[in-house]
Amino acid sequence: MYKLYSMQRSGNSYKVRLALTVLDVPYHAIEIDILRGESRTPDFLAKNPSGQVPLLEVAEGRYLAESNAILWYVAIGTRLAPDSPIERAEALQWMFFEQHALEPNIGAAYFWLSLVKGGRDLQTHALDDWMERGYAALQVMENHLRTHDFFAAGQLTIADIALYAYTHLADQCDFDLTTFPSVRAWLRRIEQQPGFITMDGSAASSGNAAVGIARA
Amino acid sequence: MYKLYSMQRSGNSYKVRLALTVLDVPYHAIEIDILRGESRTPDFLAKNPSGQVPLLEVAEGRYLAESNAILWYVAIGTRLAPDSPIERAEALQWMFFEQHALEPNIGAAYFWLSLVKGGRDLQTHALDDWMERGYAALQVMENHLRTHDFFAAGQLTIADIALYAYTHLADQCDFDLTTFPSVRAWLRRIEQQPGFITMDGSAASSGNAAVGIARA
Repeated sequence: MYKLYSMQRSGNSYKVRLALTVLDVPYHAIEIDILRGESRTPDFLAKNPSGQVPLLEVAEGRYLAESNAILWYVAIGTRLAPDSPIERAEALQWMFFEQHALEPNIGAAYFWLSLVKGGRDLQTHALDDWMERGYAALQVMENHLRTHDFFAAGQLTIADIALYAYTHLADQCDFDLTTFPSVRAWLRRIEQQPGFITMDGSAASSGNAAVGIARA
Repeated sequence: MYKLYSMQRSGNSYKVRLALTVLDVPYHAIEIDILRGESRTPDFLAKNPSGQVPLLEVAEGRYLAESNAILWYVAIGTRLAPDSPIERAEALQWMFFEQHALEPNIGAAYFWLSLVKGGRDLQTHALDDWMERGYAALQVMENHLRTHDFFAAGQLTIADIALYAYTHLADQCDFDLTTFPSVRAWLRRIEQQPGFITMDGSAASSGNAAVGIARA
């Protein structure tokens, strides 16, 4: 069974939990609270020198970092990873977009504005840049979703899961999604997928059994 | 033959040119000068709504964006992309690291300090953050390279090509690599690979034929 080092309120960690739950793959989650320094202990740094979650133990003593690389690894051979080379590359295209255009902005805004006490005062110099670049990323997504239900391959893939994690947190950190109707419709579409769980680990209203942190 | 929309002085574009040249895959390069707005014309935006290079035409009228997704697409089935699932995932791990930890910092510093006239004055508020996070990324790479010759699979892969592009520009935008001896040794190792070309398209001293923009 996979062993996943994860933080409940980390969007990057949520991606992996969501994919594993949608795929109905059992896993053992170990909560690492980065706000309390638990990703910076000698023991954790020996597993991941970057000191970040999520981290997946893929074999005894062998660890894989980077949320989107983990998504790729757990999804390969399943319906969440397209088969054809071009559709795979298009899913990856959106996953790289997520890590350089969306996560560094909405993810950073969420971390400092929602998670860290007093974070807004510490990061006033960066806030304008996050907002500008975060809205630019949302506009790219809105434009794509006007003519597509999902990001790649015409169906739910790990690209959607990667992008959902921080997009669904946008309204918790100053972003206003009013002018992004296609993004909002896509968020609702993801939430209606079989096996969907919210970030706190509870099942969607469709009646799935509760999963998530309770598995740890 | 691949048609590649690329900018000569863009690190992200250079990655793709370098991989295609190392693989000895012919391509037709079309220079897009983003500093002159050529990636924001209606014609280009119809091809890539993100308005970015590199952009690869993978089939008539079908375009793939995001440098690292393009690397993956052109390398699949070649020696630059590992075969085993875990080694593939480890290569992807470093490529995602590149796009969220290295490129947003060294890439941004390079763009504003080296390419844009007066850019340093425009971006003084961001420079400290780029420097701090860029050095943190370099330290993660240094730690890995102390015990590895390459980033994944024990050989040159697209992970090395992705990371080389902006790392080799670090000293052109205020980063000092003196205290990163393993990173410097790795840069030299990449430059000695068969088929290596510099960013301006000239061959390395090993005697390869000049390639790059001259192919356009």
